[in-house]
Amino acid sequence: MAHAAPVSPLAPKTISELPGIEGVRFASGAAGIRYKGRTDVMLALLDEGTTVAGVFTRSKCPSAPVDWCRENLKHGTARAILVNSGNANAFTGAVGAAATRLSAELAAKATGAPLESIFLASTGVIGEPLDASKFDGVLGNLAATARQDGLLSAAKAIMTTDTFPKVASLTTQIGGVPVTLSGMAKGAGMIAPDMATMLSFVFTDAAIAAPVLQKLLSRAVRGSFNSITVDSDTSTSDTLMLFATGAAAKRGAPAITVEGDKRLGDFTRALGKLLRDLAQQVVRDGEGARKFIEICVKGATSAQAAKRIALSIANSPLVKTAVAGEDANWGRIVMAVGKAGEQAKRDELSICFGGIRVAQKGLRDPDYNEADVSAYMRGEKIDIEVDLALGRGKAIVWTCDLTKEYVAINGDYRS
Amino acid sequence: MAHAAPVSPLAPKTISELPGIEGVRFASGAAGIRYKGRTDVMLALLDEGTTVAGVFTRSKCPSAPVDWCRENLKHGTARAILVNSGNANAFTGAVGAAATRLSAELAAKATGAPLESIFLASTGVIGEPLDASKFDGVLGNLAATARQDGLLSAAKAIMTTDTFPKVASLTTQIGGVPVTLSGMAKGAGMIAPDMATMLSFVFTDAAIAAPVLQKLLSRAVRGSFNSITVDSDTSTSDTLMLFATGAAAKRGAPAITVEGDKRLGDFTRALGKLLRDLAQQVVRDGEGARKFIEICVKGATSAQAAKRIALSIANSPLVKTAVAGEDANWGRIVMAVGKAGEQAKRDELSICFGGIRVAQKGLRDPDYNEADVSAYMRGEKIDIEVDLALGRGKAIVWTCDLTKEYVAINGDYRS
Repeated sequence: MAHAAPVSPLAPKTISELPGIEGVRFASGAAGIRYKGRTDVMLALLDEGTTVAGVFTRSKCPSAPVDWCRENLKHGTARAILVNSGNANAFTGAVGAAATRLSAELAAKATGAPLESIFLASTGVIGEPLDASKFDGVLGNLAATARQDGLLSAAKAIMTTDTFPKVASLTTQIGGVPVTLSGMAKGAGMIAPDMATMLSFVFTDAAIAAPVLQKLLSRAVRGSFNSITVDSDTSTSDTLMLFATGAAAKRGAPAITVEGDKRLGDFTRALGKLLRDLAQQVVRDGEGARKFIEICVKGATSAQAAKRIALSIANSPLVKTAVAGEDANWGRIVMAVGKAGEQAKRDELSICFGGIRVAQKGLRDPDYNEADVSAYMRGEKIDIEVDLALGRGKAIVWTCDLTKEYVAINGDYRS
Repeated sequence: MAHAAPVSPLAPKTISELPGIEGVRFASGAAGIRYKGRTDVMLALLDEGTTVAGVFTRSKCPSAPVDWCRENLKHGTARAILVNSGNANAFTGAVGAAATRLSAELAAKATGAPLESIFLASTGVIGEPLDASKFDGVLGNLAATARQDGLLSAAKAIMTTDTFPKVASLTTQIGGVPVTLSGMAKGAGMIAPDMATMLSFVFTDAAIAAPVLQKLLSRAVRGSFNSITVDSDTSTSDTLMLFATGAAAKRGAPAITVEGDKRLGDFTRALGKLLRDLAQQVVRDGEGARKFIEICVKGATSAQAAKRIALSIANSPLVKTAVAGEDANWGRIVMAVGKAGEQAKRDELSICFGGIRVAQKGLRDPDYNEADVSAYMRGEKIDIEVDLALGRGKAIVWTCDLTKEYVAINGDYRS
C-alpha cells in the first residue's frame, strides 16, 4: 500500500558508498509472511568471534523478538540476524515467544550457528500470530547465497512504509589501522499503518569486546536515535544493534577490551556520526514530512532539561503544523517551552528561526524582518533555536512537520 | 477567520436552561482590541461578599493576566471579571504586567470595586502588546448595563475559534436550600490559530468561604478540565475560576466555612458534574473533531498510573488518526499503553471498543466480530476501555480524533 508512495522530498539526493564489512554477509528473500511474492525476510551472517551490543524500545509492552534479543545479548556474541517484515510478532503472548524460538531454531539449522548467537527482529502487523515455519523454506538458500556486498538490498528488504532505503557508511581508524562502519535503518513513523518500527543494524570490522561495544552504543544512541521524533509514538519493537566482527585485527587493528581505551576516540566519533545520519534519515522519511526540523535548546539548567524542552517543542502538534504552514510561530514555541515543566524564565527567553532572532527577553524582537523569516520558512530545512539564558544545558533534536498527508497515511489506510 | 467555521458536528443539540445567579451580572461589548466592531470584551460584576477560587495553567511561561489572578486570589474575594479576546497579553514582559494593572484600574474605576477584587483573562494573539487603554471607552457603559441573564451572551463574547458557546447550569442543595451553579467555557484546541485558550468561569449563589471553595475547585478540576486533551498542547493562559456570591444565604442556605462540611455532598457532586459537562464541550469543539472519545483505563497499579496511561492513549497521534479512520486499531492502543512508562503486563491486558472486547490476555480476542466493531466505529462517540488487570487504579479521560481539518486549521491559517 504505502509502498507505492512517492519518495520523500527530504530523502538524501545520493546514496553513500557502501564498502562491504569483512565478516558480514547479507541475503534477502520472500517467505510469504503476509503477502506472496514480496521480499520480506533478511538474513545477515556474521563470522565467528563477532561481538554484539543492542538497545531496544522502552515500551512496557515490547514485542517477542525484543524479549528474545535482550536475553541473547547477555552472551555477547552474534552469528546471525533474521529480520522479517509483514508481521511484528508483537502482542502475541506465549504463541509469540514460541514463534521467536522456532525462528531462531530454523536460522540455527540453516547457518550452523548456536541458538544463543541468533538475533531476531520483526516488523509489520501487531497481534497476529507469526507463522515462523514459513522461514524453513527460504533460510537454507539465503544462508548459501549471502554476499558481503548485500547491505543495500538488505536495507530494502526490511522497508515497510519507508519511501527510501536508509544506509550509511564511514571509515575511521583504531590504533592507526582503518576500520569501517556500515549500517542500515528502517522507520517512517514511530509506528506506521502496518505497525512499522524503527530497526537499525550497524556493522564494523573493528575488534571490540562486547561490554565496551555496549557502552559505546548506549552512549551514541542518546544524540542520535534517542534524539529524533516523528509523532511521539513509540513502537513495541524498536531495535538498534551494533556488531563488530573483529576482522580488522588481521590487518593489525588492536583488540579493544577496556572501556575508555584512548584509541577509541575516532571510532566513537564516527559511530556517533553514523547513527546520527541514519536517525536523521528516519526523520527525513517521516510520514507526510515536507520539512526537516532541527531544534536546538541551549541555556537550560541541565542537558536533561534542555532535551525535555526540545522534545516538547518537537512533539507539539501546534509547532509542527505551524512549520507545515511555513509560519515562524514563536508563540507556539513559547507554549511548548512552558508546558515542558522544566525551569524557564519567560522574560529571559530568546527564539531564532534560521539564525533570525524573532523574540528576545520576553518580547517580540522589534528588529526582526517578517519578510526574511517568511522566505526562510519556505525552505526544506528549518532550524529553531531557543536560548533559555539560565545555564549551560544544551540539546539538539530532529523532527519533521505535521501535514495532512500524515493524517491521510495513518487514518485513511482502510479505504 | 475560524469564526466562519461551521458548528462542530459534536456540539450539544440543545443549550441548557440558564437561570441567572443572584449577585452576578454580565455585559459584553466591542473595545476594538484587535478588530474594529467585533465583540471582544466581557465584564462580569459580582456583589459584595463574593468569594473566589481559581486554578491556572501549569505552563512555566504563564500570561500576565494569570500572574495577576494568582496574586489577587490570595485575598479570596471578587467583585469583577474582565475578559478580552483578540490579544492574550502573553509573552509581553514588563509591558504585559503594566497592561494588566491598567486594565484592572479601569475596571475598578468603572465598577467602584477595589483593585484586589478584579480578575482578568485575555485570549488571542501572543507576543503583541495589549493596549489596555482601549477598555476605557467601554467599561463604564458595560458596568451600567450588566444583566443577570447575560451569561449566554457573555459566553459568546469570549469565543475565539470556538464554533459554539459552551454553557451549563445545575441546581442542587446545601442544607436543604436550593442553590444554583451556572458557568461558561471557551476553548477549541489547547491553543488555536490565534492562541486560543481554555477559559472557564463558574458562578453559584451558595455561601462558601474562599478556602473551602478553593479545595472544592482543586479537587473537581481533576476529573474534568484536567482529564481532557485535544492536542496535548497547553496554553500559557488557561484559567478556571469559581465564584460564590452567597446570595442563597438570604433564603436560608447555610454559610459553609469548614472543609469537609457534610452538607456539601450534593454541591460537590453537582460542581463535578457541571465542570465535566463544560470540559467535555471543549473537547466536542476540538479543532477538526469528528469523534468524541472516552478512554477508560482500569486495573492499573494506581489512579495516577491509570491517568498517565489514559492520557498517553488520548494524546497518541496514531490512536487519534485511527479513530478518525474508523479503525478499532488496538495495536496502537497497546503501543500507547507501552510508551506511558507505567507498569503494564502485555499478557494480561484486555481492550474493548464500545464494550466489544477485541484483545485479551496478550492476544487478539478470537471471538470478536469485525463487522460489529466496524459498525460501532462509524458512530460519533467512541468508548475505549483498557483493563490492565494489575490493581484497582482507574481513570477516565476525554479527547477527540485527529483529522486533516485539524492540520488545516492549524497549518493553513496564513493562506
